[in-house]
Amino acid sequence: MFIKGFKYAAAAAGIRNKERLDVGLIYSEVPATAAAVFTTNRVKAAPVLLDMEKIEEHQAQAILVNSGIANACTGEQGLNTARSTATLAAKALGIPDDMVQVASTGVIGEQLEVEKFEQVMATLVSDLSADAYDDVSSAIMTTDTVKKTAARTVMVEDKEVKLFGMAKGAGMIMPNMATMLCFVLTDARITAAALTSILKASVDVSFNRITVDGDTSTNDMVLILANGTADNHEIHSENTEACKLFSEALADLLKDLALQIVADGEGATKIVTIHITGAMDDMQADMAARTIANSALVKTAFFGEDANWGRIIAALGRSGAEFDPDEVDISFDDVFMVKNGLGQGNEVESKATEILKKVRFTVAIDLKTGNSCGDAFTCDFSLDYVKINADYRS
Amino acid sequence: MFIKGFKYAAAAAGIRNKERLDVGLIYSEVPATAAAVFTTNRVKAAPVLLDMEKIEEHQAQAILVNSGIANACTGEQGLNTARSTATLAAKALGIPDDMVQVASTGVIGEQLEVEKFEQVMATLVSDLSADAYDDVSSAIMTTDTVKKTAARTVMVEDKEVKLFGMAKGAGMIMPNMATMLCFVLTDARITAAALTSILKASVDVSFNRITVDGDTSTNDMVLILANGTADNHEIHSENTEACKLFSEALADLLKDLALQIVADGEGATKIVTIHITGAMDDMQADMAARTIANSALVKTAFFGEDANWGRIIAALGRSGAEFDPDEVDISFDDVFMVKNGLGQGNEVESKATEILKKVRFTVAIDLKTGNSCGDAFTCDFSLDYVKINADYRS
Repeated sequence: MFIKGFKYAAAAAGIRNKERLDVGLIYSEVPATAAAVFTTNRVKAAPVLLDMEKIEEHQAQAILVNSGIANACTGEQGLNTARSTATLAAKALGIPDDMVQVASTGVIGEQLEVEKFEQVMATLVSDLSADAYDDVSSAIMTTDTVKKTAARTVMVEDKEVKLFGMAKGAGMIMPNMATMLCFVLTDARITAAALTSILKASVDVSFNRITVDGDTSTNDMVLILANGTADNHEIHSENTEACKLFSEALADLLKDLALQIVADGEGATKIVTIHITGAMDDMQADMAARTIANSALVKTAFFGEDANWGRIIAALGRSGAEFDPDEVDISFDDVFMVKNGLGQGNEVESKATEILKKVRFTVAIDLKTGNSCGDAFTCDFSLDYVKINADYRS
Repeated sequence: MFIKGFKYAAAAAGIRNKERLDVGLIYSEVPATAAAVFTTNRVKAAPVLLDMEKIEEHQAQAILVNSGIANACTGEQGLNTARSTATLAAKALGIPDDMVQVASTGVIGEQLEVEKFEQVMATLVSDLSADAYDDVSSAIMTTDTVKKTAARTVMVEDKEVKLFGMAKGAGMIMPNMATMLCFVLTDARITAAALTSILKASVDVSFNRITVDGDTSTNDMVLILANGTADNHEIHSENTEACKLFSEALADLLKDLALQIVADGEGATKIVTIHITGAMDDMQADMAARTIANSALVKTAFFGEDANWGRIIAALGRSGAEFDPDEVDISFDDVFMVKNGLGQGNEVESKATEILKKVRFTVAIDLKTGNSCGDAFTCDFSLDYVKINADYRS
């Protein structure tokens, strides 16, 4: 999507594989308000550590990203490399160092070479164009099989505000090809405080609800730049109508990208929503949904198209969520498999098996202990998942 | 192993599959002191609920076990069935109902038929013999590919005390074929209090340290009967030399059985010890070891024989254990892959790859934050794991 004031370019720098786009540059012609959410992993890649400092200023004008090498577990040298590449981009763009955010994804434990960025930087800057966003979406792919982009438009008072997002990720962690990056660009005028809190809330209901394999990475980040070119009245608080509309659009965009990641999950053949109702509180609903969504046995049963509610109830039982096993209901889409803890027989099971043949379905579970609900989004666990991850570096 | 006073029998009752041993009976000629550890899953199978009541008396004289159907998620009817089968065995053996412990493993959500137990009970009791322990070991198998038994002998003062154990389990949870059962028989004379506390401590350093897929089951139990026929001075406290010797023997026996389960893990081709040192406390050592041992990405890398320390350090980073990423050391057996958070290069990686070709090896990690250590035992995550679990009920 074209968004006024943003330009894009990508290049093949030969970071790890020759002849594929592996470096991307996103540039805002004017300084943009910036916010970010980073990995909670104690092991954080060099670009994450650097960006965490820079984002304190809530201002950015460029994102420099590479795939191939994650620049994680690279020590002081890796941090210096991250700083040097940011400086390279800043000089070429004629903006301060602090205005360049950096991101990496790829193999852990190998050093990035600054020279490879030097060789492409002039070309990147001269190639910047408003419609090359797809090239950057390609440059950030690792084991992803498809590009992941999404766009939304929302009317904020009388102005049209646009949001465009791109993401990469095919395992929660691709520990060589470390994980999930997402960049969102918008022309909204918005305060740093509002942008920061809206981004956090939107990530909580999107990226924080998906799982491919339960791992988190050293390099995960979601970064948003708002350059204000929509010229709307500045969005400034969480209680205004404008804030609500923008917030909904961002959450919806991120959920779209998150589900694209699940659908492209390594080896995935199915996308499954785990929908918990009747939980005592939101945290218990989350625990229940995520434990089921992460269970290898539940996910292999999905792959086998086996309506195996025993695996689901067993995962629920170790989730920590409170419930009475003799009261829980489980359904696959509109087929009630389990009522008050008891299976509903072979006829129902045949119907449920038909549901499992679908590419998308929902497993709904009523805990009957309260009024809270929560979702998790997962994929099945296939032979190809093991193949991809056992063969990955060879 | 022959242990004075214990007898065994098994029969093919056709619980789920015809013509295989699926019911076992273990009988002690004299009332035995009993202790047990049960699953922590909130969803507990009927036999677990029943045994939890009975074990309060710390006395038992028989164990009736079946495979094929787990009698889990079967409601009031399932609980009545468990009670009825215990009563059947008690009558046939001429002992009180309360002296019969019951155990089941198999499909969740299906009802056991009492009639099938009725049909074989007389034969079971008349077949009881001191050397038929292997038949019971066979009768408890589900997807297990091998029987799992172990024996130890220990001198307690001037008396020889024997311990014999059998176990089944090939996934932490086999949610249809629900999980891990272990029965230990010993001729030790020991107080209920000592037996209970020693069993718990022994399970903590054996079964609680293994993982195949991170799931826990509705039916897990470890049950020990001590019939006192060794005629040793009664073991009564945790501080005596006798208690220490017996405790070590039991822990060693259970660890042996636990490792047999890992080795027979669904699809497993390798057995890996995750050895954490330098943790701040025991809990952090455990968290670190278990998170790595459970990571699908680490386990697929083991299967791929890929010395992928990036996956290990990333799992460590989300484990919750405290450490400085720039100080951690990682070795594969005697090959130091990572020193102070940095990879040691391609030559070292080639050596580590040789280690990964072995069937058994240790991944040792020094967190350098304290003096605590902890182990977890795991297997690799193979194509066959997915095949077994996707195809299981079909």
